[in-house]
Amino acid sequence: MSRNQAISVVGLTRHDGAGAGALVDDALAVEEPMEIRVGGRSVAVVMRTPGHDRELAAGFLVTEGILRRREDVLDMVYCAMKREGGPACHEAGHGEARENILDVLLAPGVAVDWSRLTRNVFTSSSCGICSKASIEAVRGQFPAITETWRPMRAVLATLPERLRVAQAGFAATGGLHASGLFASGGELIVAREDVGRHNALDKVVGHEFFAERWPLGGRILLVSGRVSFEIMQKALAAGVPWVAAISAPTSAAVEFARASGQGLVGFLRGERMNVYAGTLAE
Amino acid sequence: MSRNQAISVVGLTRHDGAGAGALVDDALAVEEPMEIRVGGRSVAVVMRTPGHDRELAAGFLVTEGILRRREDVLDMVYCAMKREGGPACHEAGHGEARENILDVLLAPGVAVDWSRLTRNVFTSSSCGICSKASIEAVRGQFPAITETWRPMRAVLATLPERLRVAQAGFAATGGLHASGLFASGGELIVAREDVGRHNALDKVVGHEFFAERWPLGGRILLVSGRVSFEIMQKALAAGVPWVAAISAPTSAAVEFARASGQGLVGFLRGERMNVYAGTLAE
Repeated sequence: MSRNQAISVVGLTRHDGAGAGALVDDALAVEEPMEIRVGGRSVAVVMRTPGHDRELAAGFLVTEGILRRREDVLDMVYCAMKREGGPACHEAGHGEARENILDVLLAPGVAVDWSRLTRNVFTSSSCGICSKASIEAVRGQFPAITETWRPMRAVLATLPERLRVAQAGFAATGGLHASGLFASGGELIVAREDVGRHNALDKVVGHEFFAERWPLGGRILLVSGRVSFEIMQKALAAGVPWVAAISAPTSAAVEFARASGQGLVGFLRGERMNVYAGTLAE
Repeated sequence: MSRNQAISVVGLTRHDGAGAGALVDDALAVEEPMEIRVGGRSVAVVMRTPGHDRELAAGFLVTEGILRRREDVLDMVYCAMKREGGPACHEAGHGEARENILDVLLAPGVAVDWSRLTRNVFTSSSCGICSKASIEAVRGQFPAITETWRPMRAVLATLPERLRVAQAGFAATGGLHASGLFASGGELIVAREDVGRHNALDKVVGHEFFAERWPLGGRILLVSGRVSFEIMQKALAAGVPWVAAISAPTSAAVEFARASGQGLVGFLRGERMNVYAGTLAE
């Protein structure tokens, strides 16, 4: 199995109906764990497609409520794993090193409110566990969308094709999710792919975080698959007013969007689309 | 929004190309959190589609290495949340109550090795973090597949249609993943749907756990979407020798299958299929 970062090539037997099958090489989406640390403290391990790791870490921490501004981050460094008694972190430069622990160094004076880690909310027994309570708890962390801008239906209709063109990894593997962020006129700002739906979104958010275009008012987020509660939560944390998806939303995603002032479009297939929250402009 | 368990109906605006759009009702997949406890100790909160909650909890705990035999489980009870200072658990009967905390009561003398919780492995900083080390760590928890039985290619070709017929929720919502377990001749044993891919698999495993058909030798697991590392890990924990998917596997799924003696088929579309690990019988 040889690889570049996001795609690896593997030998397999392909059956096309009759006969014994052909030995061929094909591209697969790479899936590897990455640990995200903040100041040496482990925050999460995500199974992700390598590449844009810093964007992933930044987007993850922004959407978890840990990071707020670009200047909160002093540096991000990969860790070496050579020392007994635990890995030691060192400056690994800003290339995408082939290592899988990334430590986020905060600027002096930046205080982390660890209680904002919503993943902890979801994995601790003290959280309000019924759906309504969980949604309220998450919404309380981030301001509701108040802007009244509405995207045009004709613009939305163009987005799936614009995202598809940017999905080089999906075209090669059929195994990568994508997220794309679009300006109000339909211009693609950034698209990212990953084996994880949430990771692709985190990378998009992290890209804009580093570009200091923040928060993401007047933007439309398009995701290649389905929309869950967590996708809407991450979009709200980044200030994205409108979310669209090629496929279906869940019940919790619709409830969350309506309670948060977000627009939500599902089953976006050219001119055909379902609007679950908000109203489009004509 | 009205609902039954797995599907809720929501009002939305449907655009079909021209005009102002029509106000219609449509079915969505329900997504709600469920907390799984073992003897009162919180183990995980999963966003799941309600229904077959006990199967989900059992399958989750089996594939995490916590449960091994049917007789390990004395009962599973939903918790009430009425008391100050934390929810109290009470007997809630065996109906699928509309509550979202499920406590698994173990039989006397059953010891839990909490260190086997692989989710903890994946979220603690002490895990072997590079892909190979992680895979080895998980594989070490469960025996490799040693059976030499191989499914017939003609049988595999029939499975997607058999699973599709059982996907009532997907047909209604377009938003549910499915897992199906098949006997060697292609007979569907059990199929389950969920907004979460892993949950659908856990429910299938839990069903067989309660039926005491265990472990799942001579079976074929078919999943509706993609195959990640974690799907292969759960299949191995249940002793499933062959995994097939309608869509793509990741690089880590293929590595895991090959290292574990599992068969892995991807892009299964009728007579066409890719065999990434193992060899099919003709």
